[in-house]
Amino acid sequence: MRDTLTEDERAVLIRTAHALADAARPETLRHFRTGIATDDKGPGPGGLFDPVTEADRAAERAMRAVLSRERPDDAILGEEYGPQPGTSGLTWVLDPIDGTRGYISGTPTWGVLISVADETGPLYGIIDQPYIGERFEGGFGRASVNGPHGRAELKVGKPRPLSEAIVLTTFPEIGTAAEHAAFRRVADRARLVRYGMDCYGYALLAAGQVDLVIEAGLQPYDVQAPIAVVTAAGGLATGWDGSPAHGGGRLLAAANPQIHAAAMELLAG
Amino acid sequence: MRDTLTEDERAVLIRTAHALADAARPETLRHFRTGIATDDKGPGPGGLFDPVTEADRAAERAMRAVLSRERPDDAILGEEYGPQPGTSGLTWVLDPIDGTRGYISGTPTWGVLISVADETGPLYGIIDQPYIGERFEGGFGRASVNGPHGRAELKVGKPRPLSEAIVLTTFPEIGTAAEHAAFRRVADRARLVRYGMDCYGYALLAAGQVDLVIEAGLQPYDVQAPIAVVTAAGGLATGWDGSPAHGGGRLLAAANPQIHAAAMELLAG
Repeated sequence: MRDTLTEDERAVLIRTAHALADAARPETLRHFRTGIATDDKGPGPGGLFDPVTEADRAAERAMRAVLSRERPDDAILGEEYGPQPGTSGLTWVLDPIDGTRGYISGTPTWGVLISVADETGPLYGIIDQPYIGERFEGGFGRASVNGPHGRAELKVGKPRPLSEAIVLTTFPEIGTAAEHAAFRRVADRARLVRYGMDCYGYALLAAGQVDLVIEAGLQPYDVQAPIAVVTAAGGLATGWDGSPAHGGGRLLAAANPQIHAAAMELLAG
Repeated sequence: MRDTLTEDERAVLIRTAHALADAARPETLRHFRTGIATDDKGPGPGGLFDPVTEADRAAERAMRAVLSRERPDDAILGEEYGPQPGTSGLTWVLDPIDGTRGYISGTPTWGVLISVADETGPLYGIIDQPYIGERFEGGFGRASVNGPHGRAELKVGKPRPLSEAIVLTTFPEIGTAAEHAAFRRVADRARLVRYGMDCYGYALLAAGQVDLVIEAGLQPYDVQAPIAVVTAAGGLATGWDGSPAHGGGRLLAAANPQIHAAAMELLAG
C-alpha cells in the first residue's frame, strides 16, 4: 500500500490527520490545568500509576467521529476505545493523550499522537502539542513543525559521538530492572540525560536537538506517530535490538545510524 | 522597603520587570533550537555539565541595558555578569536562562527569571517562557499567568496528603548523595514524581498543578523569582529546613503549610 498510494490519496490522508489533530485540541485543552479528576489504570512502567482523564476519552471520541465521517473504511486502533476493523488496508493509530502523567502535572510535554499505517507500519504521523500550539508531522515526503514561531522543516542533527550526545527518556526507572540497567549503560556514556519529555522527546529528536530517545514498555499507539516523524526527519526508530518497533515494546530512536549502532550495542550488554 | 513603596512605585517596578522580560525574549529565542555551540562552566549539580550560551549572555546584556536606562540607582545581581552595586536599596536579580541544559535540549521548560528584591528578599518576580510565550508573575498583590490561552490567576492547589501529591524536580540526582537520599524519602511517599521541568516546575506549583518542588545546589538568581511567584500564588518556598531561601541552596516549594511540614520532616531524616 505504501508504494501504491497516489499523490491525491496521500494528500487526503494528510488532510485527515490534521483534521483529527484539530478535533482533539479543544477536547484535550478543556481539562488541561484545571485540577482534573483522574482514575487509575493500574501500575504502568516502573510501577507508577497511569491515569486516564476525561480529556483522553473525549479527544479520542472526537477523532473517531471525524474518521467515521471521512474514512469509514479504514481501521482504527485507539488507546481508549481499542481496535475497530476496516476494509481499506489502512489503520489509524490514535493516542489522544500520550503522557497522561505529564498532563495531570500541567507540563507542556504530552501530545496527541496520530498516525496512519499499512501492514508494514506507519506511513505518516503527527505529534501535536495543543497547549503550545505546536504540531510536528512526518511522512509522505514531509517533515515539518508548525508552532508559535512559524513553520520549519524537521531535520535530525549532525552525527556526534555518544560522549557529546543528549539522551532523553521519560522516567529514570525506564521499565524492568534489566531495562533500567541497559539504559544506564548508554546514559552513563552520554553528555547529558534529560527526563520527563513524554512523546515530545521524539519531536525534539526530529528537530535536531537531541541524539537519542530510549524508552520501554510502549504500546503500538505510543510509538507509531513518533516513528513516522523521526524517520521522516532523517532519523531511525527501531526496537532496542534493531527490529521493527511499530508493535510497541522497547523503542530506540536515533539521529543517525552511527549513534543508533553505538546505543544498540550498549543496550544489548 | 517592602512596606514603604507606594502604589506608583510598585507599578513602575512591575512595568520595568515586564520590560526586562520583553527585552530578553528575542535574545533567548534567536539561538533556541538552532544547534547552538555551548561552553562548559564545569560540573554542576550531580556532576552534570552546565553550559552557558550566547543567548544567556545576550539576554542579560539586553536586560541590563533596560535597567541602566530606567533604573540606574538599583543594584543588579545577574547570573552571567555578576553583581553591580546600587543606592536605592532595591536589587534586580536576573537569570537570563534558567535551565540551560533544557535549553540546549530544545525543551520548552527553561525560563527567564527576573525579580526585584529588598534586604528582606524578593518583592516581585517573573518566570517567563519565551518559546511558549507564557509569563508567570507574582508579588505586589498580583499572581497571574499570561500565555497562549490567555490570562489566568495563579493559585496553588488544595491541600492533599503526600500520598496523593505530585512532586517535581529537575535531576534525579538532586545534588549530593545526602541530598539525593533526603529527596527520595519524600519522593518514595508521593503519588508521582516528574523530572526535567527546570524553573517551569515552580510555575506549575503556582498554577495549582503540583504540590511540591524540591531542588538543591541553587544560586540566588535561581530561586528569587520562583519564591516570589509561588508565594504570591498562596504557596510557601523556604530552605529544606524552613529557613529563608532567597540566598539559594536547597529550595522546598510547597502548595500549603501541611505538605510543606510533611516534606520538611522527611527531608530532615
